[in-house]
Amino acid sequence: MSLNKYQNFTAKDYIESIKMGDIISLSKAISIIESSAVKHLSIAQEILEGCLPLSGNSIRIGVTGIPGVGKSTFIEAFGKLLTSKNYKVAVLTIDPSSNLVKGSILGDKTRMIELSTDPNAFIRPTPSGDSLGGVAHKTREAIILCEAAGFNMILIETVGVGQNEIAVHSMVDFFLLLSLAGAGDELQGIKRGIIEMADLFVFNKDDNQNTANIRIAKSDLERALHLFPAKDNGWNPKVISCSALYKTGIDEIWNLVQDYIKLTKNNEFWDKKRNQQNKIWFDEVLKSDLLYLFYNTEIIKNSLVNYKTQVQNQSKTPIKAAQELIDLFKKYFNPNKQ
Amino acid sequence: MSLNKYQNFTAKDYIESIKMGDIISLSKAISIIESSAVKHLSIAQEILEGCLPLSGNSIRIGVTGIPGVGKSTFIEAFGKLLTSKNYKVAVLTIDPSSNLVKGSILGDKTRMIELSTDPNAFIRPTPSGDSLGGVAHKTREAIILCEAAGFNMILIETVGVGQNEIAVHSMVDFFLLLSLAGAGDELQGIKRGIIEMADLFVFNKDDNQNTANIRIAKSDLERALHLFPAKDNGWNPKVISCSALYKTGIDEIWNLVQDYIKLTKNNEFWDKKRNQQNKIWFDEVLKSDLLYLFYNTEIIKNSLVNYKTQVQNQSKTPIKAAQELIDLFKKYFNPNKQ
Repeated sequence: MSLNKYQNFTAKDYIESIKMGDIISLSKAISIIESSAVKHLSIAQEILEGCLPLSGNSIRIGVTGIPGVGKSTFIEAFGKLLTSKNYKVAVLTIDPSSNLVKGSILGDKTRMIELSTDPNAFIRPTPSGDSLGGVAHKTREAIILCEAAGFNMILIETVGVGQNEIAVHSMVDFFLLLSLAGAGDELQGIKRGIIEMADLFVFNKDDNQNTANIRIAKSDLERALHLFPAKDNGWNPKVISCSALYKTGIDEIWNLVQDYIKLTKNNEFWDKKRNQQNKIWFDEVLKSDLLYLFYNTEIIKNSLVNYKTQVQNQSKTPIKAAQELIDLFKKYFNPNKQ
Repeated sequence: MSLNKYQNFTAKDYIESIKMGDIISLSKAISIIESSAVKHLSIAQEILEGCLPLSGNSIRIGVTGIPGVGKSTFIEAFGKLLTSKNYKVAVLTIDPSSNLVKGSILGDKTRMIELSTDPNAFIRPTPSGDSLGGVAHKTREAIILCEAAGFNMILIETVGVGQNEIAVHSMVDFFLLLSLAGAGDELQGIKRGIIEMADLFVFNKDDNQNTANIRIAKSDLERALHLFPAKDNGWNPKVISCSALYKTGIDEIWNLVQDYIKLTKNNEFWDKKRNQQNKIWFDEVLKSDLLYLFYNTEIIKNSLVNYKTQVQNQSKTPIKAAQELIDLFKKYFNPNKQ
């Protein structure tokens, strides 16, 4: 099939192809949604609205951890286990650290050699972008599209500790934190904010040389977890170890995920959480739309550069300049109102 | 002096007291600026406008690194060196990982025992908040206030890899990355985005047991740095090691910072960078003001809950709901315009 067919593709065409599981259409549609080009806005919105009713029937798992912890190797092992169990696995990797170069570097598919050649797997880096909502916004929409294409297992990989993990937490059903056991720094390395988000703590690199360290780290963490209040989903976060490289302990992790799903589907927390996440998504879309309205209003488009210059040559403070632009915006919409 | 005097403090009073170097006023003013309460908005803006002309005469240094790398110990050692050289040092710590608990946990002053009792040091945690701009917005303003209070050395401590480091990079003159030398993971642990931001790489915990690892890590990193294009500030990022705990190598770090200052003040990059950062700040304030306008517009205040409910019970998609609210907002300002 020629790639040229996509040139005249309408939103409907994309939706139909995605529904059929066409990976190239899926990829292209995600790119359209990630694009900040004006010409893509209405088609992006239409594709999304069309895919939404087909989405939701998946398990969404967030995998996070500091650099060097072995996230790619873990996802390779875990993803292969899942495809062997007939899941269709989509891996969305988020790399917020490459903001300066305006591109994603986690998209290095060669890091997941087996998974990237598996016909039941789809690996896609999502750049974090610089729009409001950033990370969260576009990844959430990529999830919808993957689900519409028939992927029933979504793995979201992200790096680091901070904003991006909070964002990922707001869009997954299950949050898995990968850690290393080192020289007594474990509990410092796992910060409180993360403890409250994680459903499962996995100490990776549990090979022969590391077993003693991991045993200590596990019991330290388990003790610490007892100090935290029970979660309202009824789930007690678990601590486990594995070797992603030697593919040991991976089955046990999948069993725990299944336990979690069973529990939270029974006590209805599963749907409750998804609905809460929808509200967060709404909030993000709303802010993003508002910014779009503002920056595309004629008076703002015409005045912004001038204000930026004034701020840069220090003839106006950022605070004053912002206030004046907001006033211009208000007056533009209604010249008679204060 | 009674604390009650602050009850009737006007913006002018705060500005005067901050100018005199009164730490309690400084603390209270930062809290006012961090507050999202409506009653604080105009006084916050007035204090900032009043402090801005007094600000800017400092060296702003960002210190970052993954959890467990020894950031607090480093800042304790580095900060003490600076106060011994008669600098007035303000330490602003940002902790974005505690979003769930709505508070900052890095504010644990006991982690910097010596510095926190030093009369020439001021340690202040800044919560990341959940507003647009988040991290960046309030910390930038805290810097202004500290400078107005006479602090001429600002250290911004942050954790992790990601958004918050990008934010910090956009508000400091010099960016220092703390790392550990481990088992060959160094170059994976230092991601490209960070390499492009850092002016100085410091391998911490260079004690007797670790010297060999650090030597390898340093030369690996130095080799990698050669692959990156020269920076437009004319500075080649440096690699060095230290032991924050044993206070070795700290002087050398300060010497490198001074080299950087001399170079960039001479080639005018120093001011150029500050002006660029002012533009970023403007952008953040503008977005924040816009959100404030939106969410405090009557029609939005009255409709938002209803829309949230519709999103939650899935009678409307987040995308449609956002579009309709934006339309309401436009109509509110001008009922006759489309």
